[in-house]
Amino acid sequence: MNQSKEGVEPFQYSYYDYSDWYSNNAEPTKPPKEVILPCDPTADDKLFHICILSISLVIMLILAGLTRKNKFCQGFARGSSSIFSPANFLDQTQKKGVVMAVFGLVFSKLAMLVITPDPLPFSKDTPADNKEYMKIIAIFYYPILYYPLLICGTLQRKAGYVFGTLLSFTHFGVLVWQKFDCPKTPEIYKYYALLASLPQLACLAYLCIQFPLLFVKGPKTDEDLDSSYYTNYVKLLLKKKSSTASLSASDKPALAERILEVIKGYIYIPEKVFRFPLKLAVSSFVTCVAIHHTALLIVVLVVPTLHIVRAGIDENIAFLLLGFGIVLSDDRMEVVRIVTFYTWLLEVCYLCAMTLSCLVSLIMLMRSMVLHRSNLRGLYKGDIYKLCNNQKTMHPSRTGVVCWMGLTGYQAAIVSLGMAIQTIVFFICFLFLVFLIIIPVFYGRNIIVFEIAGKAWPAWVTLILVTGLQHVTAKFAFIKQKAGTRDLNNRESLFLLTYLLFLINTVVGLVVAIWRIVITALYNIIHLGRIDVSLLHRTAESYDPAYCYYTHFLKVEVSQSHPVMKAFCGLLLDMMVGGGRAGQKIQDAEEGIQENKPNKANSSQRIRSRWQLMYTLVNNPSLLGSRKHFQTLQNSENVLNGTPNRTSKKGSKMEASKLGAEPAEPTETPESQEKTE
Amino acid sequence: MNQSKEGVEPFQYSYYDYSDWYSNNAEPTKPPKEVILPCDPTADDKLFHICILSISLVIMLILAGLTRKNKFCQGFARGSSSIFSPANFLDQTQKKGVVMAVFGLVFSKLAMLVITPDPLPFSKDTPADNKEYMKIIAIFYYPILYYPLLICGTLQRKAGYVFGTLLSFTHFGVLVWQKFDCPKTPEIYKYYALLASLPQLACLAYLCIQFPLLFVKGPKTDEDLDSSYYTNYVKLLLKKKSSTASLSASDKPALAERILEVIKGYIYIPEKVFRFPLKLAVSSFVTCVAIHHTALLIVVLVVPTLHIVRAGIDENIAFLLLGFGIVLSDDRMEVVRIVTFYTWLLEVCYLCAMTLSCLVSLIMLMRSMVLHRSNLRGLYKGDIYKLCNNQKTMHPSRTGVVCWMGLTGYQAAIVSLGMAIQTIVFFICFLFLVFLIIIPVFYGRNIIVFEIAGKAWPAWVTLILVTGLQHVTAKFAFIKQKAGTRDLNNRESLFLLTYLLFLINTVVGLVVAIWRIVITALYNIIHLGRIDVSLLHRTAESYDPAYCYYTHFLKVEVSQSHPVMKAFCGLLLDMMVGGGRAGQKIQDAEEGIQENKPNKANSSQRIRSRWQLMYTLVNNPSLLGSRKHFQTLQNSENVLNGTPNRTSKKGSKMEASKLGAEPAEPTETPESQEKTE
Repeated sequence: MNQSKEGVEPFQYSYYDYSDWYSNNAEPTKPPKEVILPCDPTADDKLFHICILSISLVIMLILAGLTRKNKFCQGFARGSSSIFSPANFLDQTQKKGVVMAVFGLVFSKLAMLVITPDPLPFSKDTPADNKEYMKIIAIFYYPILYYPLLICGTLQRKAGYVFGTLLSFTHFGVLVWQKFDCPKTPEIYKYYALLASLPQLACLAYLCIQFPLLFVKGPKTDEDLDSSYYTNYVKLLLKKKSSTASLSASDKPALAERILEVIKGYIYIPEKVFRFPLKLAVSSFVTCVAIHHTALLIVVLVVPTLHIVRAGIDENIAFLLLGFGIVLSDDRMEVVRIVTFYTWLLEVCYLCAMTLSCLVSLIMLMRSMVLHRSNLRGLYKGDIYKLCNNQKTMHPSRTGVVCWMGLTGYQAAIVSLGMAIQTIVFFICFLFLVFLIIIPVFYGRNIIVFEIAGKAWPAWVTLILVTGLQHVTAKFAFIKQKAGTRDLNNRESLFLLTYLLFLINTVVGLVVAIWRIVITALYNIIHLGRIDVSLLHRTAESYDPAYCYYTHFLKVEVSQSHPVMKAFCGLLLDMMVGGGRAGQKIQDAEEGIQENKPNKANSSQRIRSRWQLMYTLVNNPSLLGSRKHFQTLQNSENVLNGTPNRTSKKGSKMEASKLGAEPAEPTETPESQEKTE
Repeated sequence: MNQSKEGVEPFQYSYYDYSDWYSNNAEPTKPPKEVILPCDPTADDKLFHICILSISLVIMLILAGLTRKNKFCQGFARGSSSIFSPANFLDQTQKKGVVMAVFGLVFSKLAMLVITPDPLPFSKDTPADNKEYMKIIAIFYYPILYYPLLICGTLQRKAGYVFGTLLSFTHFGVLVWQKFDCPKTPEIYKYYALLASLPQLACLAYLCIQFPLLFVKGPKTDEDLDSSYYTNYVKLLLKKKSSTASLSASDKPALAERILEVIKGYIYIPEKVFRFPLKLAVSSFVTCVAIHHTALLIVVLVVPTLHIVRAGIDENIAFLLLGFGIVLSDDRMEVVRIVTFYTWLLEVCYLCAMTLSCLVSLIMLMRSMVLHRSNLRGLYKGDIYKLCNNQKTMHPSRTGVVCWMGLTGYQAAIVSLGMAIQTIVFFICFLFLVFLIIIPVFYGRNIIVFEIAGKAWPAWVTLILVTGLQHVTAKFAFIKQKAGTRDLNNRESLFLLTYLLFLINTVVGLVVAIWRIVITALYNIIHLGRIDVSLLHRTAESYDPAYCYYTHFLKVEVSQSHPVMKAFCGLLLDMMVGGGRAGQKIQDAEEGIQENKPNKANSSQRIRSRWQLMYTLVNNPSLLGSRKHFQTLQNSENVLNGTPNRTSKKGSKMEASKLGAEPAEPTETPESQEKTE
């Protein structure tokens, strides 16, 4: 996020800094024309792309060979072993940096496609007819171009890190070289290409550092289900109950505390026992990149035009304005000065609006992240009604999977469009503020608003007096408070006042209505970029496409990566392999139970757990299928339980005594599907 | 509501009917100028108002004398006996017609103030400086002018009805006479004054019929608490349980039924066992009148100007357009014809937009009424969370009382402003539709939209194909369904597709974002006039002023006029007076118990009820206050219970046996406050 902010600020600075502009143009009739010639970098883009594609292909082939060789050694769900899986998006424990950087790179390329003259590097000076086709092809090309970088990071082997270092250094080096050769381009704004490539440079630089580091550290050994994160999560869950009880004691916080609480709600502080899902982390990072690019485009598409307009203002403007009946001053040079000043104000308003919308977007992004966490935690606890009013199961549905796939892109697009609209609205607001309030106050021009307000004061005074009267009478005359209960008093006077003030209350209603429109418009415009908030009324929430996508996404995410479930799966896995401490302990205990002390207390416990299993299966017949399936596929389970005769499921009490530790069985079956992946 | 609709439709017709226009203006260069001279009606407004004010004053004095004479004969809460109480707004059983008509009258006067040249009838040709002060005075004057009409209806005596008939006939007669004298006025549109007074005429005509009818029928005897409505409500409440149980059996209705259900949700069908609160009924009627006036103003403020513009179009328009570089045709007459046609289209679009916004407002009003009913029912049941997220008590608060007083005015103002904004938005939409789609299709001009759509087809096809691909793969490849459970499948391919389609999903997200903006804007604009729906997200609902007022209003309404409470109060009152059937029965039963059979079962029941009372009081100490107060004020209660020795409250078991039927006591205390009014 910092990186994106930094990308924006120096740029704004160069625009706010008008000193050189004013010193050059004592008379602003001569625009400072700087002709930028098309620039061909020494490192030709076409050649570079052909080379890097060939290198990537070779690297991918080598990696494919390596992974196939070692495939049978890998346990299941331990690292994505294939070169066709870019990253395990449902694993919360892995390092997120490489994936985020690659997504940022790819998104940067898309953002630069918007006003680039050549969408694809293979053809120069693309004719306008083919441009759209080229853009469509480019949308599919760039993800493929950066795919090897992703693979090198996720394969978790030393060779991958070496290739990753090679590739990222090549990309980074060539890009820096190109930008060094041609810092200015003849596009809309001379430094646009340079500024737009900043996020790309940052991402590539990060990769250049990260890959060597990963190589030095070596592949991570404890991954996903092995990670202690899930068990820590469960531990905290079990521990937390006492802390929440102590919190409820201090129920009424002071005002300062409440304000602090609100501010805290807008600042995302990472917590050790909660890791952000990879997909959401990528989305947040891509959104940051999107904010940078949108801000850049917003500035570049308007400000240079304004500069040209201002440079073109000469004495003719006085005649032009006279044609419309506007006389700013009798002196023509004075008119030029005023109009130049006004266009400068216009530009300042525009840049302020852009900055404000950037800030709003960043704050809303932080708030979203806080809410993502609390929503996920709520869903982990089963609090599904808070998110969506209509009850739905947590199983991944077709729509759910589609929404899960697209969420990153959706969020980036919605934030970008939201920023554009915010800028326009804030710009209009700033214009009103500057031209109708600030200029009249300081220069005495355009005092229309003050004149209207001056004329309308009797109406305002009446409205305020009447509203005050109603509040005072309501408090002192119409409500009687007695022994803790409140009731109406002086009903006749209340009815009389209601009737007599009906018309003036209608006028008050008009003010309320205007306020309602303003607050609704502002609220919705500010929250436009947030997908975790529905902009519609709660009965119509399902019609808000962005919110709908978000809820679907969360459902898939929760159904597939519930930390408690993963902790349990990890435990099971440890037991199966037989190498884990927990598994060893349980196995030891089991063996101890079976061999040494088959006493009465234990047998009754076993019988009880057997009955629990049967009860679960009878009440959830759908589990039977996955249970059988689980058994036929995973013959190794017999090793775990140490019971070779587990084929007849409808066990009698006799058989139950032969079975191992069964208490986990009822909960085991739903998660067993997870293991078959 | 019908009345308001009728007021709008003939007006629209006169505007849609262009036949006479076109026949008169074969060449539209000559505008049909009709000069309307200022018109002074025979019945001078100033004189009439002075007369009617004097008559009203006399009538009020007579009525005051009459009511003071008979005041001591009235029981409490039986009819509003004072001339200072315009109507009991918290009584659901009274006839609502007269109150609604008077409120309609008063609101009509306010609506006509907007563009009237003389806000007060006492001064003619008001100078512009004083106009605003006059308007403010008028806002307080008109409610007073029509106050006697309201009083005549609510006093419930024959003399009141006679005076009401007199007054309403005077008002009606003079208004009809004035409109007959001067149907055309030199205001913006010649028939504006006539059309604007239609609701007034309708309301006065209704009063002219209603007062004689009331006189013939005579004053109602069973009112509010005596009414059988409340007992019927309680009976239905107790009966209903069986019917709801049978409804839950047929849980999944067919599609046709569901559509019918949705349509039913927008049509308010009165129910016998639920009477609309007077305040909401008045609000709904006033809103109808407001819709009429707003529609009229919307038309009158724009359409005459458009007519003048169209009448002024001549051959010079061709040169003017040429100045802007627009060449519609080489023939100048052709240009005139085209421009005239376009301004005609503009007018048609505008009137269509106005009609649509009228329709939307009426439909939303009906929907509001349905929701008012269901909200009130929900609150009667204690379902407070459905309405407002933050838990609050049902006691009337200061804000609550202020909101309760102003609601009618607020709703009318919000609907009016909502209609204005709806008209503007619908007008813009219609313009786009007509000028960018319909005209290109029929005339082959302005085919910009089709050209853009034609150029962009590869992008659309790609988007649709990719979205389709994701849905198909999600359904057939990524979701496996087995024994009732669904889970993810082929995770690696899912992750690969997620990465590769990331950029194209961003573009899809752009479409989603645009759709989100459109749907949010449309939803909020359509629901702008509804106070029973919050336009903000549910966590920010309290910032929507209109919705906030509505919830406060409902709380006051429910806390003061809960039908079950009223039924109980009515029963108590009957028992106190000793004249009601229920009271007689209970008294008979009590006497029978006390005199004849003081057996063991009865005494144990009495002891138990005594303990229940003590338990209630111990758990609700706040009730003690009102209980004592109740006792000291209402000595007549001793008559009810027939126990003169009820002074020592902390009764032992010995005393308890002397007490009368106590089971009602624990529930009696909270409602006893109601009786002290």
